[in-house]
Amino acid sequence: MDLRTIGVIRSELRSRSHAPKQGSEGAPDAWLEVIAFAAEGLQGVDVGDEVIVITWLHEADRDVLRVRPRSDPRNPLAGVFATRSPDRPNPLGLHTVTVRAIEGNRLRVGPIEAIDGTPVVDIKPVI
Amino acid sequence: MDLRTIGVIRSELRSRSHAPKQGSEGAPDAWLEVIAFAAEGLQGVDVGDEVIVITWLHEADRDVLRVRPRSDPRNPLAGVFATRSPDRPNPLGLHTVTVRAIEGNRLRVGPIEAIDGTPVVDIKPVI
Repeated sequence: MDLRTIGVIRSELRSRSHAPKQGSEGAPDAWLEVIAFAAEGLQGVDVGDEVIVITWLHEADRDVLRVRPRSDPRNPLAGVFATRSPDRPNPLGLHTVTVRAIEGNRLRVGPIEAIDGTPVVDIKPVI
Repeated sequence: MDLRTIGVIRSELRSRSHAPKQGSEGAPDAWLEVIAFAAEGLQGVDVGDEVIVITWLHEADRDVLRVRPRSDPRNPLAGVFATRSPDRPNPLGLHTVTVRAIEGNRLRVGPIEAIDGTPVVDIKPVI
């Protein structure tokens, strides 16, 4: 079960510590650059579409199974599967975004809290 | 970017050809058996919760970039990122389900169209 990078996020957000925890919490728009081999898979994706971008949260700690939600030490420990913590055995990020513009292999999408350089592994329509 | 199996689907659905295309299209409930190493991550997941189960659609063709939606030859070709086809570079399945019951490391979830033996790679709360 090896993932292939199909795209990369190009964002003004440079570090996890400065990123909002969710797109709806003031995240910016970003570019999603689709890698050439996968570009054909974009056929039919249109401006205005709502899509789910699946990322690989490459800075996550994969050995964590319990966290304090929202990194708040006052919160009791919770299992990672009861939270959206990026720290988890498979650090997949789910981001529901709107396609704002399309320029060749690049999609402008947002709002999205993923940081610059985050690998993208899938794009799916919202159904 | 290697995924670790954190669970397995145990379903009456035995083959992809007999499975509905979406959970909402008449899919049954199934058991999600969480592997022992990851069980601690379930703390705080409760009966009645809506969760997103992420699966690895192990029978998918990863070299496909365009498909005829819903496997209907009358439909024009579309890029896989504009469809929910399991055939795509990274065959991740997203399944929004309700937790019906919890027995130790096993969650009864549904409706879910994933077939018996499908690996599970993540569980996230719906937000």
